[in-house]
Amino acid sequence: MHFDHLHNPTFLQACLGLATPYTPVWLMRQAGRYLPEYCATRAKAGSFMGLATNRDFATEVTLQPLARYPLDAAILFSDILTVPDAMGLGLSFAQGEGPRFAHPVRDEAAVKALQVPDMHNLQYVFDAVSSIRKALTQDGKSTVPLIGFSGSPWTLACYMVEGAGSDDYRLVKSMLYARPDLMHHMLAINADAVAAYLNAQIDAGAQAVMVFDSWGGVLADGAFQAFSLAYTRRVLDQLKRTDAQGRTVPRIVFTKGGGLWLQEMKSLPCDVLGVDWTANLRSARALVGHGQGAKALQGNIDPNVLFAPPAAIEAEVGKVLAAFGAPHQAQGPGSTHIFNLGHGISQHTPPDRVSALVAAVHSQSRAMRAVTA
Amino acid sequence: MHFDHLHNPTFLQACLGLATPYTPVWLMRQAGRYLPEYCATRAKAGSFMGLATNRDFATEVTLQPLARYPLDAAILFSDILTVPDAMGLGLSFAQGEGPRFAHPVRDEAAVKALQVPDMHNLQYVFDAVSSIRKALTQDGKSTVPLIGFSGSPWTLACYMVEGAGSDDYRLVKSMLYARPDLMHHMLAINADAVAAYLNAQIDAGAQAVMVFDSWGGVLADGAFQAFSLAYTRRVLDQLKRTDAQGRTVPRIVFTKGGGLWLQEMKSLPCDVLGVDWTANLRSARALVGHGQGAKALQGNIDPNVLFAPPAAIEAEVGKVLAAFGAPHQAQGPGSTHIFNLGHGISQHTPPDRVSALVAAVHSQSRAMRAVTA
Repeated sequence: MHFDHLHNPTFLQACLGLATPYTPVWLMRQAGRYLPEYCATRAKAGSFMGLATNRDFATEVTLQPLARYPLDAAILFSDILTVPDAMGLGLSFAQGEGPRFAHPVRDEAAVKALQVPDMHNLQYVFDAVSSIRKALTQDGKSTVPLIGFSGSPWTLACYMVEGAGSDDYRLVKSMLYARPDLMHHMLAINADAVAAYLNAQIDAGAQAVMVFDSWGGVLADGAFQAFSLAYTRRVLDQLKRTDAQGRTVPRIVFTKGGGLWLQEMKSLPCDVLGVDWTANLRSARALVGHGQGAKALQGNIDPNVLFAPPAAIEAEVGKVLAAFGAPHQAQGPGSTHIFNLGHGISQHTPPDRVSALVAAVHSQSRAMRAVTA
Repeated sequence: MHFDHLHNPTFLQACLGLATPYTPVWLMRQAGRYLPEYCATRAKAGSFMGLATNRDFATEVTLQPLARYPLDAAILFSDILTVPDAMGLGLSFAQGEGPRFAHPVRDEAAVKALQVPDMHNLQYVFDAVSSIRKALTQDGKSTVPLIGFSGSPWTLACYMVEGAGSDDYRLVKSMLYARPDLMHHMLAINADAVAAYLNAQIDAGAQAVMVFDSWGGVLADGAFQAFSLAYTRRVLDQLKRTDAQGRTVPRIVFTKGGGLWLQEMKSLPCDVLGVDWTANLRSARALVGHGQGAKALQGNIDPNVLFAPPAAIEAEVGKVLAAFGAPHQAQGPGSTHIFNLGHGISQHTPPDRVSALVAAVHSQSRAMRAVTA
C-alpha cells in the first residue's frame, strides 16, 4: 500500500497495522468549545446547526485544532445526530444545552413511519467533507487524513426515543424491553441509514470512518450484543472498503463503556477499536490484538488529565503508552496504537495543555521505538 | 453457623456461601420515591434530611417495601453522604434535585481541615438502626436481616469536591491528577471515617454492611486501583467481623461500572461483590467464584426492565439466574447469588412490577434447584 498522497500518513498506517515512527494522535471533539477561535466561529454562525450545516464554517472549525497542534488526523466537524435530523425529527441545540429533537420517536406509529432518509438531505455534510479535503491539500497532497463519522444505530435510537440526553435511558430501554420488535425495526433503519451516510462521506473524500457507539455502554450484557453490536455490524457489512482511488478506508468502532465486550467486538469487520479510560490497554491488546480479526486500538487517556500541569500530563501519557506496550517488530493490526482521549475533550480544557499532551505522545512514543529497535 | 435468630436467613446464608432453598432478593433503593407510602412519609418529614435524621420516619420507610414484597433483606434508610455531612460540609437536598454540599472541599486548606467526624454527630443513624431492628422483630426473632451501608471513600470524595452530582467529575479528577497528595489525604480520612461509621452501625444492630462505590467506575484504569480500591480495602481492613452476639457480619462491595476490575476486587477482604447490568454473571462467577478469596455475587438486572410487562420481566429474571448458573452442590462463596438490580430502582417504577420481579426470582430459582437436585 502506498501513502504518497499524504504528507503525514501515520494515522492511516497505524489503523492498518503498519509501522510508524511514532504513535499518531488525534482527539475526539478536537474542534470544539475549548478553543476560543471555535467559539468565535460559532458566534458568527449563530447556532450549532448553523455552524454544522455551513460548508465554510465547518471547514474552518475542522482546521482550527490542526493549526494549533501537530495532530495526525482531522475529523469532520459535524454532529452524531445529523441522520435522525434528516429523517425529519427536528434537531436543535439550545445555548449551553445538549441536542434536542422536536419529534421524538416514542410509539409504534412513529417507529413505523421512520425511513432511511434521502441522502440529499445530508448534502451539506458531504459538501463539508469535500471542502475540508480541499483545504487540507498542500502541494497536491493532503497534510493529514480526514476521518468521517456517524453515531451508531443504538446511539441514534437513544436520542431519537429520549428526545434529548438522558441519565437513565428510561424511555429507550422501556421500548427495548417492552417492545423489542419496535426497537429492532428502528435499529435496522438506523443501520441502513448510517451505512449509506458513511458511504456517501467516503465518496466525498473521507479517508477513514468511525462509528461512535457513545451509549452502547449503558446497555445490559446480552442487550448490548442484540441491540448495539449487531447493528454496528450491519453498518460495517455495508461499508465500502475503498475510496474512489481504490485506497483502503479504515473503519473504527468506539463503544464508550464497552471494555467488557472487547472479545465480542473483535469479530466486527473493522480495523480499529476505540476504548475509554476504564480499559487497560495491555489487557485490551491481549484480547483483540492477536490472530484472526486482530484489531488496532485507539485511546484512552482520561480527558480530565488535561486539567493537571504538564509534568503530570507527561506522566499519564507515559502510562498509557506503556500499557499498550512496545510496538511489535512484526507488523499487524495488534501491533499498532492510535493515541486519543477516552472520550471527547472537555470544553473547560486549557488549550496549552493539549500542546503538552500531543508533544508528549510524539516524543515518548519515538523514544520507545528507539529503545525497542 | 446458626441462623435461629432469623425467620428468613436466606440473605445472610447466601452472603456466606451457604445453600438456600431459593435465590434471595432485595433491591437497591427499595425504600424510595416509587412507593406512594414513601412519598407520604417524606411529605410529613418536610425534607429528605428531615426524613433521614428522624429515627421513627427512617424506621417507617425502611419497612414499607417489606410490607409490600417478600424481600429477603431490609436496608437501612439513609443517605450515602451522611459522613461528609457529619464532617461539617452541610448536606442538603433541594426538592427534585440531588444532594448538595454548602462547603465543598476544593483547596489544600479545606482538605487539610478535614477530620474523621465524631460519631456522636451520626447518632441519628445508629438510633435508626436500633429502631429498625426492633421493628423487624417478631416472636423474638428478626424477620429478615438488616443491611447497614456507607458510600465508599472515593464516592464520598466525588461529592465532597464537586459539591453535588457531576457528569464529568472534572473538579475531583482535576485534584486527583494535579494534587494526588491532597486526594490521598482526603481518602485516608474518608476511609477511617467510613470504617468507624460502619462499625458503629454493626454495634447498633446492622447484620451485614455494604460499601457503595457508586462512582468508582468513572475512574481510569490505574486510578481506580490507587484511589478507590485501595481505600475500600482500608475500610474493610478495619471492620468488625462479628456483632455483639459473635455472629459473622457479611461485607458487600459494589462498584458501579467496576466489571473490568473484578479480578482485582477478588482480593478484597469481603464476602460479596455487587455488579451492575453490564457484567455477565457467568464470566463474573468464573473470575471471582473459585479458589482463594472466592466471593458471592450480587446483582444485576437493569432497573429499566421494570418498565416492561410482567412476562418480559420474568424472561429477563430467567436470563440473569441462568447467567449465574445453577447453585453448586458443594457450598462455598462462589456457589451463591443474591439477586438485585444493577443499580438503584427508578422513582418512576410501577410498584406492581416489583411484585412480578420478586415472585419470578423466588419461583424460578426454586425451580432451578429442583432440576439441579
